[in-house]
Amino acid sequence: MTHYYEDLAVGDVFETSGYTIQKDEIVDFAEQFDPQPFHVDEEAAKDSMFGELVASGLHTLCLSVRLFVTEIVQGEADVANMGGLGMDNLEWHEPVRPDDTLTLRVEVLEKTPSESREDRGYVEFRRSVTVDETEVMSITSVNIVRREDAADEE
Amino acid sequence: MTHYYEDLAVGDVFETSGYTIQKDEIVDFAEQFDPQPFHVDEEAAKDSMFGELVASGLHTLCLSVRLFVTEIVQGEADVANMGGLGMDNLEWHEPVRPDDTLTLRVEVLEKTPSESREDRGYVEFRRSVTVDETEVMSITSVNIVRREDAADEE
Repeated sequence: MTHYYEDLAVGDVFETSGYTIQKDEIVDFAEQFDPQPFHVDEEAAKDSMFGELVASGLHTLCLSVRLFVTEIVQGEADVANMGGLGMDNLEWHEPVRPDDTLTLRVEVLEKTPSESREDRGYVEFRRSVTVDETEVMSITSVNIVRREDAADEE
Repeated sequence: MTHYYEDLAVGDVFETSGYTIQKDEIVDFAEQFDPQPFHVDEEAAKDSMFGELVASGLHTLCLSVRLFVTEIVQGEADVANMGGLGMDNLEWHEPVRPDDTLTLRVEVLEKTPSESREDRGYVEFRRSVTVDETEVMSITSVNIVRREDAADEE
């Protein structure tokens, strides 16, 4: 069942399966987008504040978006997401290491109808990534979600 | 010359060269991390609110981080970045399309010495991505930057 704007309620929670991150993909991602020594070089990482190779925080964010899109927007929840407006409060609480298994939990924080467009509303989500039940990253997002009555008219 | 915490001043601005994004990489990135129809399928994108294929906003963010790391942290500015603490105020103002050339401008907004650790301070940056002088994305970040006096002691 598609979740339109009307179907989402403040407090609704969605959870995804786990995704295990590998050392090779940590290095590959960082070489592309965040080539700092502590993300691409195990030896150099020992001298960093992390003391070992850790995933780029941007990589953790990207994996959390993949889980959001594939398992929440396009998964069982099937949210009628039209696009993202922005994100806020991105915090990296703990480093992510090779072989960590990331799980995403998403909660509906707030709903705001669009004032200018009848076909959509804005939904604020809190997205939380955990490893072994410890939160490693959190962020809030505002997504544009289609209204069911607008979809009916098409 | 390395820019330690002491060398950065509120109002300092750094700018990068331009990076031109290709259609193939927009699709490749989105297939990995944000596989929504308007980022991976030109035909489906025509029916989206964008009306055409556009880059994932996450992709724009990733490219802005690459420009930040390669041209600012590791480039001429050579900022003694120890890692990121978090990001805030991420806004996508305009869609990014194939063949757009992205340029990053970074401004120092605020400096805060660490209260618990003498070797570092926190620097808040505003990062702005433009295409043809139109801002397409903006975000603020807080980075942990090493102090020169701490580096001297090592």
